[in-house]
Amino acid sequence: MGGKTARRRVFRVRIGEDAGIDQRADLLAVEEPLEIRIDDVPLTVTMRTPGDDIDLTAGFLYTEGLLASLDDVTEIRMCDENVAAVTPRPDVPIKPASRTFVTTSACGVCGKDSIEAIRVRSRFDLTADHTRVIPAVLATLPDRLRQAQRVFASTGGLHAAGLFDPSGTLLALREDVGRHNAVDKIAGWALRERRLPLTGHVLVVSGRASFELVQKAVMLGVPVLAAVSAPSSLAVSLADESGLTLVGFLRGETMNVYSGAERVLTGS
Amino acid sequence: MGGKTARRRVFRVRIGEDAGIDQRADLLAVEEPLEIRIDDVPLTVTMRTPGDDIDLTAGFLYTEGLLASLDDVTEIRMCDENVAAVTPRPDVPIKPASRTFVTTSACGVCGKDSIEAIRVRSRFDLTADHTRVIPAVLATLPDRLRQAQRVFASTGGLHAAGLFDPSGTLLALREDVGRHNAVDKIAGWALRERRLPLTGHVLVVSGRASFELVQKAVMLGVPVLAAVSAPSSLAVSLADESGLTLVGFLRGETMNVYSGAERVLTGS
Repeated sequence: MGGKTARRRVFRVRIGEDAGIDQRADLLAVEEPLEIRIDDVPLTVTMRTPGDDIDLTAGFLYTEGLLASLDDVTEIRMCDENVAAVTPRPDVPIKPASRTFVTTSACGVCGKDSIEAIRVRSRFDLTADHTRVIPAVLATLPDRLRQAQRVFASTGGLHAAGLFDPSGTLLALREDVGRHNAVDKIAGWALRERRLPLTGHVLVVSGRASFELVQKAVMLGVPVLAAVSAPSSLAVSLADESGLTLVGFLRGETMNVYSGAERVLTGS
Repeated sequence: MGGKTARRRVFRVRIGEDAGIDQRADLLAVEEPLEIRIDDVPLTVTMRTPGDDIDLTAGFLYTEGLLASLDDVTEIRMCDENVAAVTPRPDVPIKPASRTFVTTSACGVCGKDSIEAIRVRSRFDLTADHTRVIPAVLATLPDRLRQAQRVFASTGGLHAAGLFDPSGTLLALREDVGRHNAVDKIAGWALRERRLPLTGHVLVVSGRASFELVQKAVMLGVPVLAAVSAPSSLAVSLADESGLTLVGFLRGETMNVYSGAERVLTGS
């Protein structure tokens, strides 16, 4: 904790002529929650990479219009490695404006394990899902997603989430400027179709895998989450704890398996 | 409104041997706020691409742990194109859990211009900033950012925001798993250094340009925001209204200028 990167051993899987599996060290971007408190009252929690946390706190309050300058506060200090405490000057109270998000957290992140403090409990136990997915099938999914995603090709600005069955058939595709929204649109579809839990399925996302996306996958009961780009440190930790198979850098003929490797490696 | 993409005329600028400027049509990913209301009380606002909004609402409530199934609600309907109204069953009230974000919005997005409803007013008037930036200088900035950002090269998982002066000198670089956090860290640095407004400066971000990033640039009084990837529709609209120069797809020897083109085109 405290650094911007974390080292992690991963399985590097290659398909095609040069097929094989080896273990290697991978550097992950660290993601941890930062809780901002005003006069001991929790204001918000943001998922961030530790470092420059006082600047982040001041900058967030400023760009949200809650602070005009540093003269408006008596002190900003870290009261825990993931909690910033802001003391406004008594004559310049900080009041969340209409568009500001406010947490109703009574306990906050302080002094608790950061995952425990922010995770939502799922009804589904992924460890009971013994789905196997063949790497050669996984490797085809990003292209299938892009082919189905004509809008992406034309704007370059839309993220996609696709739900596949283990044979690689696309069941649902949703697009959004926000990855998390694309996954929530899949979740809404699955609720309507009464398909939860998504046992035996694979969820593919076009960008990176954050804590939030892993959280959503676990809530859906989907055993495999595959991302085209990098996962964060907290995404890997939550995947580990939840029994989720997390695949990253799923590109061309290679992929990294960060957790739950048994679903992928024994299927090849 | 209502579609996933919006057409926009942009200036396409090329430097190098094939230097030139032409106007062309560009497709933008549409970004609009969606307000979710529970029994007429605003719960949250998410920036999303319109479409599947009922699914998005149900999926968001589900993955946040606020809804166990669609049987818990009597109705989810759009009461405005950007407002989803949820009516829980009386015996299954939806109560935000400890980690959920709650808006204190009294008016909400409904019936108002969406930008007006969510933007924060800046103290700075960008239209008074007559900075000129030469395209050949702009084109060098992503590489300068990456060179300074050793961590990015090793993890592929960290976004960067860099503040440059008009000659292309890097003044501050911050990294984070979240683009918005990287910019807030720059904002906190600028507050501490008493450099606001950032008149005459250029802010470069490693990914896409959302409404939120344009909002932050305007709050900082920085006249030029340049992104390596695509801007959203609402990012361009807010840049237009604010007099911000918004550059996208800043890659190699080309870039798109979406708004405030006079700062870039007259400098070449």
